[in-house]
Parts: sequence; C-alpha cells; structure tokens
Amino acid sequence: MPYVNIKITREGGTTPEQKAALIKGVTDVLVAVLDKSPSSTFVVVDEVELENWGIGGLPVNEYRSSKTVTRAPSPQPQQKKT
Amino acid sequence: MPYVNIKITREGGTTPEQKAALIKGVTDVLVAVLDKSPSSTFVVVDEVELENWGIGGLPVNEYRSSKTVTRAPSPQPQQKKT
Amino acid sequence: MPYVNIKITREGGTTPEQKAALIKGVTDVLVAVLDKSPSSTFVVVDEVELENWGIGGLPVNEYRSSKTVTRAPSPQPQQKKT
Amino acid sequence: MPYVNIKITREGGTTPEQKAALIKGVTDVLVAVLDKSPSSTFVVVDEVELENWGIGGLPVNEYRSSKTVTRAPSPQPQQKKT
Amino acid sequence: MPYVNIKITREGGTTPEQKAALIKGVTDVLVAVLDKSPSSTFVVVDEVELENWGIGGLPVNEYRSSKTVTRAPSPQPQQKKT
Amino acid sequence: MPYVNIKITREGGTTPEQKAALIKGVTDVLVAVLDKSPSSTFVVVDEVELENWGIGGLPVNEYRSSKTVTRAPSPQPQQKKT
Repeated sequence: MPYVNIKITREGGTTPEQKAALIKGVTDVLVAVLDKSPSSTFVVVDEVELENWGIGGLPVNEYRSSKTVTRAPSPQPQQKKT
Repeated sequence: MPYVNIKITREGGTTPEQKAALIKGVTDVLVAVLDKSPSSTFVVVDEVELENWGIGGLPVNEYRSSKTVTRAPSPQPQQKKT
Repeated sequence: MPYVNIKITREGGTTPEQKAALIKGVTDVLVAVLDKSPSSTFVVVDEVELENWGIGGLPVNEYRSSKTVTRAPSPQPQQKKT
Repeated sequence: MPYVNIKITREGGTTPEQKAALIKGVTDVLVAVLDKSPSSTFVVVDEVELENWGIGGLPVNEYRSSKTVTRAPSPQPQQKKT
Repeated sequence: MPYVNIKITREGGTTPEQKAALIKGVTDVLVAVLDKSPSSTFVVVDEVELENWGIGGLPVNEYRSSKTVTRAPSPQPQQKKT
Repeated sequence: MPYVNIKITREGGTTPEQKAALIKGVTDVLVAVLDKSPSSTFVVVDEVELENWGIGGLPVNEYRSSKTVTRAPSPQPQQKKT
C-alpha cells in the first residue's frame, strides 16, 4: 500500500516516457525491497516551477547562477549541519 | 484544526460544484467524528494529470488499458473509475 | 485512485473507532461525489503533537489559551475544538 | 536538511519577487532557529486555485463572501486576507 | 533537486537496511531517468500505523481480513502485501 | 489561508521553544510578504528520524560520515543538475 510523491523541478520538459520510467523504477524498488504489491502502489509526480522551488535561500535558477559564478575559486570553510 | 489534502486524477473535468461537494463532505465528516470546528478546517484539492499518476508500475491510463485487455474474457460488471 | 491525507492534532486520544469512521466517511464522500472506487482510495491519518502545530503564530495550546483569555468577557456558547 | 512546503491560495498573482522573499525568509528562520545549512534547505511553494481550497466547509471565495455578509453590522477594522 | 516522500504501512518492522535500500534505489532511479544529482536528492520515508491507513473504506488490517474471508473459496496463489 | 509543512531531521532534541520560534518566524514571513492573516495560517512541524531521511542515496548519518571522511582532498568535477 505504498504512496510515493516525487517532486521535481519543471525543466524544459519532462517527457511522458520519463515519467513512466520514474513510476516503473520507483515501484520496482518498493517491490524488490519490501515485497509490496505493484497494484496497490501509487506514485504521484509533481512538477514544480523553478521560481517556486528554493534552495540556499534563493529560487533555483538564481541559486544555480550564483554557484556557477562564485563557487570555483573560494574554498568552502563552513561546516553547518546538512 | 484539521488539514486535509485530497489528490485525485484530473479526468476531463472536476467541476467547481464537485469540488465544493468534496470540501463540504469531508469537513462534515471531521465535524461529525471528531467534533472539529469547520472554521479551522482546511481542505485542499489537488488534481493530478493522468500521466503523473502511477499505479501497478504504470501511468494510470496505461494501467487501465492493460486491465481492460487482460480482464476481457471474464465479465466485469463494476465500472468504477479506479 | 484518490489519495487523502488527514492531519489532525493529537488530543488525548483519537480512538481506532474514530479513525475507522474518518476513513469510511471520507471514502464515502469520494464515492458519492466523484464515483471513485473505494478499493483504490487511500486515506492516511497523521496525528500531530500539539507543540508541532501552529496557528496564529503560536503553538496550538498557547493559541487556545490566548483566545480563552482575550475572549473571556463576551459569552461564547460554541465550544468546538479548533 | 529541512524541507518546507508552503501552500497558499493563488490570488491574482504572487510575483516572483514575493516568492523569492518567502524562500529567503523561511530559510533564514531555519538558519536562525536551528542552525540549518541554507544549501541543504529546500522550500517549495504551491499555489492553489481558490476553488480547490476549502475552509468552513466552503470553497475560499464562498467562505469569504459568507463572512462579509454575516459580519456586516459590526465594524471590522482588520482587513487581512484569510 | 528532487524531493521524494515514501509512505508505507508500519509492518512489524522495516529495518534500517531496508530503509537504506529504499533511499538508494529511489535515488538511483532519479539519477538514471532524469540525470539528477544525488547530493541534492532528498528521500523521506514515513511509516504509518496500520490503524491510520485506510483502503476500501476500512483500516488496512480490517480490509485485509475482509478480503481473506470473501476470497477464501478461490485459490489465491499470490500473497503480496497490499 | 496558508498551510506550511516543515520537515526536519530529529536531532537529539528540538525543544518546544525552538518549535515555537519556527512557528512564529514562518508565520511572520507570510504576514510580511503576502499580508496573510496569522489566525488562518497553519504551520505543521514534522520531525523525521535520521534513518528515515536520505540524501546522496544514503541515510543522513551515513551521508554525513562519508562526507567528513572523503570530501576534503578530492576536487569535485561533476556538474549535474542540482
């Protein structure tokens, strides 16, 4: 009876084939690991607009830009809890 | 203070009246069973595209087709949406 | 294929009978309004500790106390749980 | 490693700037209170259509109308969005 | 940046090894299908008490009993957990 | 009418005061950014066991150990989507 919710950013276009592959892959994992029945396993995929997804205190696209620009030269001293 | 999230497949068109009936029906259940206050009961309905909902390791529409095919020989009186 | 998640505060004790009544009630609503099949309708109940649920910027129990105090002068016949 | 999901009603238009402010504000709270690392803090904003959000057993817009009507006689200085 | 939430019934005991296998398996699917980075893929497993999970309008354990009873006459080789 | 769900790992002990600070902080953000009413803003905090939270394909505690050991010396060439 598993229920799985997958949230991903909407990136140009996740195809129906990719969604079908996600659904099959995740269901197979639940069958293999916990012997769950596929017919009572639900998988729901939510695609989230980039401006609605935040990481590092920024919307995803700004976060990516900031990492591309600033990352390489500076060492990373901070050791916060992940 | 209940919060209820209802996820359903988007099927041609759930009407605003049906959504209102879901909201009223579910709120009434919480009031009747747990004596909750309607004014602090939230109900959020999410409609999910068929290609984003999986069951049996397949997207819903493929799953339904596969069941229709394999079940064909045995008469199948019930015709509910899964 | 509906999936319903009900979040309620954990209040001294929601009994198994009450949970069964929630499950039956909500499933009946989905069958009545959208003609969904009960056998592919999941209902998951989450009970949330009072200190983990906030409203009005306060944990629930503090919120309730604050409302009891400020409302005291005006008679308040309804006494539903929020 | 926090994951935060914010569900709000879709009201004419939450701007990208407002979403960015939500993401930054909520991430800052998690850093300040629990010393979490921003780079492993996800914030996902879901905007929900008014007809899909219920309160008081009614869709939001009907609920607001009903409150406006019944409350009319008593002056109502606060005018926040519910 | 995927976020995956897996809800399963709590059945006697999902071991830490099984949870680790779920986490690895689902992350691998996201990497294989969508080329996501594992280090920004969160997987959260929720175990739900049997009395809190409903299907067919009944708590899971009652649902299973009801199916065992009514199905008894016809041989039922598959014995997967639903 | 916002609903906010915060999922954090259970780490030795999030105190009631910290939870109250999360609730207040997040509610304040919603009021400041979107002018939402605190009295119709719900915040629900879920604490998740470390073994139930995965990142990088590993349960959190294993992920942290692996990063502490292997990270420093090796440069990070991979450039996957976050």
